[in-house]
Amino acid sequence: MKELQKVINRIIERVNVNLRELDIDVNSYIGEIIPLNQLVKFYGFYGITPHHPLDFDFRYSNLAGSCFLGKCSVNNSVIYKSDIRGDELKKRGEYFEYNGYKIPINDDEIIKIIDSLLVKTLVHNYSHDPENLEEFLIKNSISLHYANIHGSKIEGCFVLPFSTIDLTTGHDCIIGAFSYIQAEEIEHLDIKDGTVWVRNKDDFNFFYRFNEGILKKYINFEPNKRPQGIFMDFVEERKLDFEHIYDKVKSKTDINIPYGASIDRYALVKGNTRISENVLVAQRAYIQDSIMGKGANAQEHCYIINSCLEGYNVTAHGGKVINSMLGQKVFVGFNSFLRGKPDAVLTIGEESIVMPHTIIDLEEKVDIPKRHIVWGYIKNQKDIESNSASIDNFLKIKEGAIYGNLIFKGNGEYFVRAFQNRIEHILEANGAYFDGNRNRGHAQNNQNISFNIIQPYPEGELEGLYPTINIKPLMPIQNN
Amino acid sequence: MKELQKVINRIIERVNVNLRELDIDVNSYIGEIIPLNQLVKFYGFYGITPHHPLDFDFRYSNLAGSCFLGKCSVNNSVIYKSDIRGDELKKRGEYFEYNGYKIPINDDEIIKIIDSLLVKTLVHNYSHDPENLEEFLIKNSISLHYANIHGSKIEGCFVLPFSTIDLTTGHDCIIGAFSYIQAEEIEHLDIKDGTVWVRNKDDFNFFYRFNEGILKKYINFEPNKRPQGIFMDFVEERKLDFEHIYDKVKSKTDINIPYGASIDRYALVKGNTRISENVLVAQRAYIQDSIMGKGANAQEHCYIINSCLEGYNVTAHGGKVINSMLGQKVFVGFNSFLRGKPDAVLTIGEESIVMPHTIIDLEEKVDIPKRHIVWGYIKNQKDIESNSASIDNFLKIKEGAIYGNLIFKGNGEYFVRAFQNRIEHILEANGAYFDGNRNRGHAQNNQNISFNIIQPYPEGELEGLYPTINIKPLMPIQNN
Repeated sequence: MKELQKVINRIIERVNVNLRELDIDVNSYIGEIIPLNQLVKFYGFYGITPHHPLDFDFRYSNLAGSCFLGKCSVNNSVIYKSDIRGDELKKRGEYFEYNGYKIPINDDEIIKIIDSLLVKTLVHNYSHDPENLEEFLIKNSISLHYANIHGSKIEGCFVLPFSTIDLTTGHDCIIGAFSYIQAEEIEHLDIKDGTVWVRNKDDFNFFYRFNEGILKKYINFEPNKRPQGIFMDFVEERKLDFEHIYDKVKSKTDINIPYGASIDRYALVKGNTRISENVLVAQRAYIQDSIMGKGANAQEHCYIINSCLEGYNVTAHGGKVINSMLGQKVFVGFNSFLRGKPDAVLTIGEESIVMPHTIIDLEEKVDIPKRHIVWGYIKNQKDIESNSASIDNFLKIKEGAIYGNLIFKGNGEYFVRAFQNRIEHILEANGAYFDGNRNRGHAQNNQNISFNIIQPYPEGELEGLYPTINIKPLMPIQNN
Repeated sequence: MKELQKVINRIIERVNVNLRELDIDVNSYIGEIIPLNQLVKFYGFYGITPHHPLDFDFRYSNLAGSCFLGKCSVNNSVIYKSDIRGDELKKRGEYFEYNGYKIPINDDEIIKIIDSLLVKTLVHNYSHDPENLEEFLIKNSISLHYANIHGSKIEGCFVLPFSTIDLTTGHDCIIGAFSYIQAEEIEHLDIKDGTVWVRNKDDFNFFYRFNEGILKKYINFEPNKRPQGIFMDFVEERKLDFEHIYDKVKSKTDINIPYGASIDRYALVKGNTRISENVLVAQRAYIQDSIMGKGANAQEHCYIINSCLEGYNVTAHGGKVINSMLGQKVFVGFNSFLRGKPDAVLTIGEESIVMPHTIIDLEEKVDIPKRHIVWGYIKNQKDIESNSASIDNFLKIKEGAIYGNLIFKGNGEYFVRAFQNRIEHILEANGAYFDGNRNRGHAQNNQNISFNIIQPYPEGELEGLYPTINIKPLMPIQNN
């Protein structure tokens, strides 16, 4: 195990150097909470399909429980139970459009993780850094439980539990617990817990911060303690349900999977659940006693329980939907926590947008009308007033507006269109609009994946480290 | 699937070219019996431990159900449920002794399989070809159900079901069903079914051939039919027992495994079985209601049922022992079939040697005294007379002897010593003499292996082929 501990120490040291201006000792936060015995016990895996370019290169790393798809290299890192997908990476010959520039892609993009520690962190999508289009780089960084690194190149960042860094290039920043950052490029910032910040430098700035006392009930992260609070309890209470899925080499499901739909082999679907056409249930998603309408998707680490999603719903990575009725095209953003009760159901009307990192935790029945934007912390119908606005009103904002704790600056229409376009793109990419022929997406391409299971050295100095692994596509056989 | 079929056709063509002098069309034998759907469905695996040098390179091949340990490359081949071990390969810097020569080993030895098809064939040990010490090469060859390629470099060979080519370099030969060949070097031979031939050119020649009619009851291989007979039925009746072992990523056993012993994760141990210290149960071995005494081993594809092995017993690859009592150090050679009945037990006294490919299938109780050599076909006590001799008598043979159908030429002592030395070597290599400190062997080194599971492309033109996989040891991390 000696070498594995050295790798971890080395990463902590590198992150500390990067963050020296922010006066933090990362070691005091995580030195004690890395579960070394689980790093040795769990297996990692990578998927093989004819639809995704194969290219894996793993060196001097631990990959316990993590999943890889597409082109990916991991070097001197610890990637523990992290869902890394590579099925939306850019391909050589394509173009990337950015602020009027049309930049040609020189090479197939690669997810490159160097000297980093990711604990239960989702990494997905592709680099939105216009300066690094061929390389989705995560370097000298640490990211913790149920955080999302989404389309974001980061160097020297400390990404705290349940936070999300989305479409943002990050240099030497701390991303507070349950903070959501979509801000193009950030440097040397210490972002406080519970910050929801969506910024487009030219057009708008959306800024909300959770009340500290309330947030601590949901997620509380202090030095040398595992993260605590309702979010952690919720996830951990359901952890054992996944165990039997990991015990088996191949999974079987009793659920009827209709044409065009797919349930990942490492997803959990239980109870009286109905899956409709073109539904995508991604790995480590958890669906119980729910209806997934046509084209709905449940992304990694989603929990959908006792709920009905009418169709074409996006539930982004880490979104939780309990005792809720969601109309068509309702979008639930990253790590949002929507919890009704059997006698206090949450209803959200069609085409509404639940912003990333929204908490709706009901003490009474709540109805959110159709075509609304929702954010912040909501526990009853009255909270809706200060934590939502109709899309039509938002479209009219020209210079800015204040709703409760939300400060919005800039152009409301640009903001709304950006979200709407993105939701459409997600539905397309996930195959929600597949017609049996056209509009294939992940739900169709990910139906038949071979997962190769990889394990570390079982004992000795290298215990917990994986051997050097290099997987490439086949080269055509020589005819002779 | 198209490409996989092309790989198979290409191998058949190459073997046919190699065997053109022997006037055989391999395609007519096996064209129809390769189970393409199973090649796609099954997974292969390779083991990782700190005790074995890691070096795997798999290209353009199918590896369904096969297991790799140690340094191995597979190229343009189909290796179906074959147990390939690499835990006795020669290492750079060692010496190989041969007829008074002491040849230095220039490089770590590699098992190299090129343009070959191995169906349920065991490949083990290391190349005994003094001309190719660093490369255990299997090229342009086909080997079928439960055959053994043991320490034998082969090129252009067609190795039929339940045969063994042992410590022999083979060029362009057919090895008949259930034939055992240990003959240093052979070229362009068409060896008939049921030939047991042990030759040392300078010293001795042991030659026995089974009666054709009797042999066909046990193993019958005809063009375009799966092999048939008692041997196949015996194995296939127990095939389902293994299924649950392959379903799980990690195995659990209720059996008490004492200090120094190991049961392979892919072995089956059932019923009321007792495992003693330093016992080795290799993968796909099957032990039921038996006692394995101290230092006994059951090698790959062994079946030991309702039997007692007193200790330090070697049951070589494919050996079957049913309703038998074996004294200390009784050796049972490759693919031997020893079947007593509950009311007609087979008893073999200590230090006896059951030659490879012996059939003892009892209609009455049989006792074989201690220190005897046994061969051929035995069904009752009377058959012992013409199918065995005491070791002491054998030691006295100077020029040759005939016993029943056995023709022995040369020096009996050299023959006996060669076998005895080899049995001692096997016991040492397997760790039978481990004292808690010294004399470690496979039983100790193979206790804790991580098995990595690999699967082929699940669909498309490449269906059934595995991606290019390259696994190497870790290079030390850079300190900086």
